Amino acid sequence: MFFRSALLSTVGLSLSAFLLLAQAPTEPQHVFGYRDFSAQAKIDQQFLAVPSAKLAGEELKTLTAAPHIAASKEDYDTAVYVAGKFKAAGLETSIVPYKAWLNLPKEISVTATDDATGKTLMHGPTREHVEGDPYQDDPRVTPGFNGSSPSGDVTAEVVYANYGRPEDFDRLAALHIDVKGKLVIVRYGANFRGVKVYVAQQRGAAGVIIYSDPADDGYYRGDKYPNGPYRPDTGVQRGSVQYMFKYPGDATTPGIASTPELPASKRIDPATAASMPRIPSTPLSYHDAAPILENLGGPSAPREWQGALPFNYHLGGTGVKVHMLLKQDYAMRTIWDVIGKIPGTELPDEWVVAGNHRDAWVYGAVDPNSGTAAMLESVHGIGELLHQGWKPKRTVIFASWDAEEEGLIGSTEWAEDHANQLAHAVAYFNTDVGVSGPSFESAAVPSLKQFVRDVTKEVPSPKGGSVYEQWKAEQAANGSRHHVNNGFNERHGHANVDNDVEIGDLGSGSDYTPFIQHLGVPSTDIGSDGPYGVYHSVFDNYAWFIKNADPTFVYEQQQARVFGLEVLHMADTDVLPYDYVTYGKEIEAYIEAAKKKAADAQLSSIDFSEATAAAQKFTSAAEAAYSRQTAESGNPTHLNSELRQVEGDLLSSAGLPNRPWFKHTIYAPGEYTGYAAVVIPGVNEAIDAKDVSRAQTQMATLTAALTRATSTLESAAK
Amino acid sequence: MFFRSALLSTVGLSLSAFLLLAQAPTEPQHVFGYRDFSAQAKIDQQFLAVPSAKLAGEELKTLTAAPHIAASKEDYDTAVYVAGKFKAAGLETSIVPYKAWLNLPKEISVTATDDATGKTLMHGPTREHVEGDPYQDDPRVTPGFNGSSPSGDVTAEVVYANYGRPEDFDRLAALHIDVKGKLVIVRYGANFRGVKVYVAQQRGAAGVIIYSDPADDGYYRGDKYPNGPYRPDTGVQRGSVQYMFKYPGDATTPGIASTPELPASKRIDPATAASMPRIPSTPLSYHDAAPILENLGGPSAPREWQGALPFNYHLGGTGVKVHMLLKQDYAMRTIWDVIGKIPGTELPDEWVVAGNHRDAWVYGAVDPNSGTAAMLESVHGIGELLHQGWKPKRTVIFASWDAEEEGLIGSTEWAEDHANQLAHAVAYFNTDVGVSGPSFESAAVPSLKQFVRDVTKEVPSPKGGSVYEQWKAEQAANGSRHHVNNGFNERHGHANVDNDVEIGDLGSGSDYTPFIQHLGVPSTDIGSDGPYGVYHSVFDNYAWFIKNADPTFVYEQQQARVFGLEVLHMADTDVLPYDYVTYGKEIEAYIEAAKKKAADAQLSSIDFSEATAAAQKFTSAAEAAYSRQTAESGNPTHLNSELRQVEGDLLSSAGLPNRPWFKHTIYAPGEYTGYAAVVIPGVNEAIDAKDVSRAQTQMATLTAALTRATSTLESAAK
Repeated sequence: MFFRSALLSTVGLSLSAFLLLAQAPTEPQHVFGYRDFSAQAKIDQQFLAVPSAKLAGEELKTLTAAPHIAASKEDYDTAVYVAGKFKAAGLETSIVPYKAWLNLPKEISVTATDDATGKTLMHGPTREHVEGDPYQDDPRVTPGFNGSSPSGDVTAEVVYANYGRPEDFDRLAALHIDVKGKLVIVRYGANFRGVKVYVAQQRGAAGVIIYSDPADDGYYRGDKYPNGPYRPDTGVQRGSVQYMFKYPGDATTPGIASTPELPASKRIDPATAASMPRIPSTPLSYHDAAPILENLGGPSAPREWQGALPFNYHLGGTGVKVHMLLKQDYAMRTIWDVIGKIPGTELPDEWVVAGNHRDAWVYGAVDPNSGTAAMLESVHGIGELLHQGWKPKRTVIFASWDAEEEGLIGSTEWAEDHANQLAHAVAYFNTDVGVSGPSFESAAVPSLKQFVRDVTKEVPSPKGGSVYEQWKAEQAANGSRHHVNNGFNERHGHANVDNDVEIGDLGSGSDYTPFIQHLGVPSTDIGSDGPYGVYHSVFDNYAWFIKNADPTFVYEQQQARVFGLEVLHMADTDVLPYDYVTYGKEIEAYIEAAKKKAADAQLSSIDFSEATAAAQKFTSAAEAAYSRQTAESGNPTHLNSELRQVEGDLLSSAGLPNRPWFKHTIYAPGEYTGYAAVVIPGVNEAIDAKDVSRAQTQMATLTAALTRATSTLESAAK
Repeated sequence: MFFRSALLSTVGLSLSAFLLLAQAPTEPQHVFGYRDFSAQAKIDQQFLAVPSAKLAGEELKTLTAAPHIAASKEDYDTAVYVAGKFKAAGLETSIVPYKAWLNLPKEISVTATDDATGKTLMHGPTREHVEGDPYQDDPRVTPGFNGSSPSGDVTAEVVYANYGRPEDFDRLAALHIDVKGKLVIVRYGANFRGVKVYVAQQRGAAGVIIYSDPADDGYYRGDKYPNGPYRPDTGVQRGSVQYMFKYPGDATTPGIASTPELPASKRIDPATAASMPRIPSTPLSYHDAAPILENLGGPSAPREWQGALPFNYHLGGTGVKVHMLLKQDYAMRTIWDVIGKIPGTELPDEWVVAGNHRDAWVYGAVDPNSGTAAMLESVHGIGELLHQGWKPKRTVIFASWDAEEEGLIGSTEWAEDHANQLAHAVAYFNTDVGVSGPSFESAAVPSLKQFVRDVTKEVPSPKGGSVYEQWKAEQAANGSRHHVNNGFNERHGHANVDNDVEIGDLGSGSDYTPFIQHLGVPSTDIGSDGPYGVYHSVFDNYAWFIKNADPTFVYEQQQARVFGLEVLHMADTDVLPYDYVTYGKEIEAYIEAAKKKAADAQLSSIDFSEATAAAQKFTSAAEAAYSRQTAESGNPTHLNSELRQVEGDLLSSAGLPNRPWFKHTIYAPGEYTGYAAVVIPGVNEAIDAKDVSRAQTQMATLTAALTRATSTLESAAK
């Protein structure tokens, strides 16, 4: 009780927070990674008492006072604010600039005319507006636009292509609807918006309009803002259409850091960059999309393509002509990561990195600053520990990334900048949409799933009991949802081999991508989710947040506690708490599923036997290592050093076919899903392409990676 | 070829009809019921050449020239027209009047006001209107109203109750939304509208508004009229809310005929009649319902209750007050059946009855006059046979029923009037929605499923091949849909024991009800279906029909041919073509399903063993009878006489609990579904009510019926 009452006076712990702690679960006795958890348990309690709901609310309000798109003055102001907080907590803090190729909208105009009458049906985009929102009229709000879209001036007939998936375009082709030279209108959802543009480009479209259908995050889901959390008529989802499934980060510097001093000769021409779309695209609200869709000619759309606008959807090709004029202001612009470091006392080369982006399309109350406020309170708590003399065994780094929205740029450039040091990093912990509601969810590499669960068992939930208990109860009642940071939170389907609360796979869509998929740093992503229909609109602001997401900031506090405990445990653990047994079983399940898919696709000549055997050996070796990890004693130095190497063994130096930046053999963002992970991507994407020979080559790459990792695990167990 | 070429000159067979016949399937050699089919095959070909697409179109146009609601002058005019056609074909024709308790709308008014502001949100009903419909402005069009609704003057808060099913009201109760004294607004679909009012009445509602949600038959399904077949904004579904699951027909004369001379003392008071709703109700278009639904307060509706109007649906209880004023003009009114008879030469007491109703809520181009026009062309074809000297072995009766829309009144009163003669009837063939599109569907007692299939094998389809082949191909491609005459054509789930094209169960909603469910006459219902969103609205008119249903009337011609062949075969067959083996297997499946349902409901004490054994014996006896039916020779008199008795054996004299008019032990309209059949209804509804003792009594009734029928089948097989 000493720590708690002592801290009550120190940091002004609120009564409600005290009551929460009073009903917190009893301290765990055995936690994976610790030989004796009792000392850590005391530090944890000391830490948990600090993060403040009230302060998180104030920090959120400050961070979101103005629109702060990457590379803007207001973005820099938030960098300075975050750096101040880091410094105040005792972190060695720096603002780290990079220079990246970014666009801002100079002129965005979409005009629809009726084919038959020549009448103007719509001239937009309409400025986002609802009754009574206090933030919407700031002159610094940009109109809706797509990051990485080229400029363009297209006048063409319009075709409706549902979600813009390959199968949607296949369906149009089967129905003899030609998209060549047309403007394609697609709805948000089902995949990453860059994938929609990528597929449309492959099929010969002249441009793409991406709109938010009310079926997907509008009134069909529930009340719209300001009466509820869902997208109002004029709400636009901005967003990057960068082909980040090719590579994320600055388009001109794949694999290297866009430092200010990087000579121009080291950069590639954006005109030839694989991550830059070649056709223009822009987002629209359903207020603006409706007059286009309602007047499309052509046959009725397939019934599953029908959205929630009040008319029958047609496929188009006739009926409406749209003039889309996009003037993008492209320039090499400076962005600012904020990095705060606490050097490790015993193992300074083993970095524990925890990050969240700071830039927002507009105000970003949920995305990303609910995560930033929580991170600042995590730092606040760790600062209190530092103040009382605690120091981490391993080096802790907190990062406030910039230009995530444009393509994970701040994190990618920093990760590429520190690739050598990150080869020794023990974990990357991400949070992006920290809080959009009360339902905790996570995605993680399988080796860290147990770690995330253990941490959540220590944190009290505002609903009573622990975060873990509430998480488990809600999943039992409602099923699990993938935490994907984009407001959709789609149900996920990863291999659940451990019969516990489900944790999703890491696809893409946030800053863990360079860490896990490029560098092999074991990663997690956490957040507390709820109905969130204002993603990337002007309405993702403080007024929306306190009405819908977390009026008393208790989930901000929870998020700060979980995020901070992840860092504390990983910084001080005796044995690295990587569960490679679960990882091995998941890989076995992935291979089994791919085998079934190949059989279904009549590609029975693909030989899975060596990969299957390699995965089984990996699991066996992991079991032996696990016994060592849970042993009561012994010097863990060799064990930890080997364990740290396993994830790196799963990288292939060549990377994936046509996208060498993605080096992980087990996880990648899907080339045709974008957000959602594709597992054993080399093999699965070859099967999807019905390319037996490539599948066999990729199988060999996978087998080699598993064999390397197995040998490291065997060494660890010695 | 003699008959066909001879008829070509006689009846002016069109070239397209000739081409159709030229590609017709080869004549069948063996047809169940015939010892030698060759003579019948020639008669069939002679018949099939007569029904004319062109004439059916003209007849449809004449029948639907004016609104002709039951008991109106225009209704009488159509009776005279049909009687003229019957007479011209050589039928002994009479117009048969009955007197029934019917309402017409004197004043229908619905006014919605905003609770908070007192502002009028809607004052309706709005007159039905679309651009360019030539029929909509006739002054004789009634406003939308519900047959059998009492008058009422209710002002109350409004609660949204989805489809108005018991489970919907249970859900409201679980969500603490009180419906007592409230106006309940429900959407059409999922059940018979009278059930919605019945459940609302049971739950204490003060009145009911029933509206057409665009999700169910409006723009969410496809283009709305005049651009397509679906319900336009102002389209209202009129309809009876009579509790015809209690008993159909005139509410004042359950079980007896409402002849004009029936003394008033033999009639019951409508105020106490079990089939009359006690609370007022009225239908609305979605144009008029939207302002009510959009302004409802209370919590959001469950997501599966969300329709396709462009806002989030709420449950209400607050937000909107509605004043519903209904002045119904009730009177004892005269209706007119038209009956045309062809006396049988050999078996005049064995009636073959074929019927279709003639009255319409407004114009009734699809419902019912697409069926009437087809029936007139069936009669036309049979008239040609009579003209050439053919006479039926059994007595043929064609019937044009009146006041079906108000509660199957014309058919029910006539059937009650002729109950003694109908005890010898061999079949009742119904058509109602004869043609709403190109997809043939049927419902029938199991004993006549093979009969319907056999008939359709002889009729050419406008798509090529036979009706049967197209039917089978479409079911294989799309699944089967229950032919329910109400525009919804919901997928049905009867026991499919014979692995052939699926034929639905007979529930209720059309004129076969008194024949099969009250009197035990084996019945079928046929129609050719398509997208049909204007059911019971002013837009179900000739203009809609030729745009959407059957522009060249070739499906009218097909329908005339199938309907006529049903009559011809049943009139002249050697052995009655009843397949009681299939019937027995279906009953076994029904009992098995009820047993499983009882087990799921933890009512394991219900003993199914005797009913199961009785059903198995029934099937065995049916197999022996079937051998006799397919034998090459022998006098079929005794066999036929016994076979005819089997369906009657399945009636119980007591009828169903609380609804003694329904006497069939295997099929009834569900008390809580209305249209859809409940199988072995006594047993299943007792299980639904968790009433073990009643279930056991009903099981005994079922077992006794099966035992009677088995003994008759055993006698038939001797």
